[in-house]
Amino acid sequence: MSDPNCLFCKIAAGDIPSTRVYEDERTIAFMDINPGSRGHLLVIPRAHSKDLLAIEPEDLAAVTRTAQVMARRVTEKLSADGVNLINSCGPLAWQTVFHFHMHVIPRYEGDTLRLPWQPAPGDRDEIAAAARALTA
Amino acid sequence: MSDPNCLFCKIAAGDIPSTRVYEDERTIAFMDINPGSRGHLLVIPRAHSKDLLAIEPEDLAAVTRTAQVMARRVTEKLSADGVNLINSCGPLAWQTVFHFHMHVIPRYEGDTLRLPWQPAPGDRDEIAAAARALTA
Repeated sequence: MSDPNCLFCKIAAGDIPSTRVYEDERTIAFMDINPGSRGHLLVIPRAHSKDLLAIEPEDLAAVTRTAQVMARRVTEKLSADGVNLINSCGPLAWQTVFHFHMHVIPRYEGDTLRLPWQPAPGDRDEIAAAARALTA
Repeated sequence: MSDPNCLFCKIAAGDIPSTRVYEDERTIAFMDINPGSRGHLLVIPRAHSKDLLAIEPEDLAAVTRTAQVMARRVTEKLSADGVNLINSCGPLAWQTVFHFHMHVIPRYEGDTLRLPWQPAPGDRDEIAAAARALTA
């Protein structure tokens, strides 16, 4: 259920810090530290699975349900004007961490998001502020 | 359950032709006519809902399950090297048809996909050939 070498398993276990904005029995949502937009977050299953081809259907359904919850929340709490859900399966599809994750990317009037975005560390205070708004 | 002015409701009803590659009780998968890559397809719920914020959780789970089935299929039957799932919620997130749909975009070594891609009609014979491979 857990891979000792997996970054997101360590985040799920709390061994590596993250800014959690939601969790339930099967899933965790936390802020992306290289955000493509304000409020960009990831939803993962607690149980390890490498990617979309490998994930158990129950975990996939749970992740997607959480992604919908968070899409509504970024709309309500961050006043996002739209949302993209993105899953990358395989290195050629831009996957870089091999624990299934769904990106929830809030979109805003006038943003210039293109994919793949150039991952770069976000401003930590801005990420923390977005997380506080999402959990307020 | 159905919107008489909705393109994808008409496709679901069979009133507008599409190249279906999968269907079950709740969902339909059909080829995107403006493909971003070979085998690019869409998964929709039969029941109308505008977007990710509006879709019923059961339909969302069913769409995602079908998307996983099709991700496996493009990997096996089209030898895709990766897959992206993408949902666009709202015009600012690149949504253009307001019936919930999940893009299943096969990825290949050396492809140059960037998002948003410039939607342009695909070669109809190539789309049909990919659909045949997916349903063989």
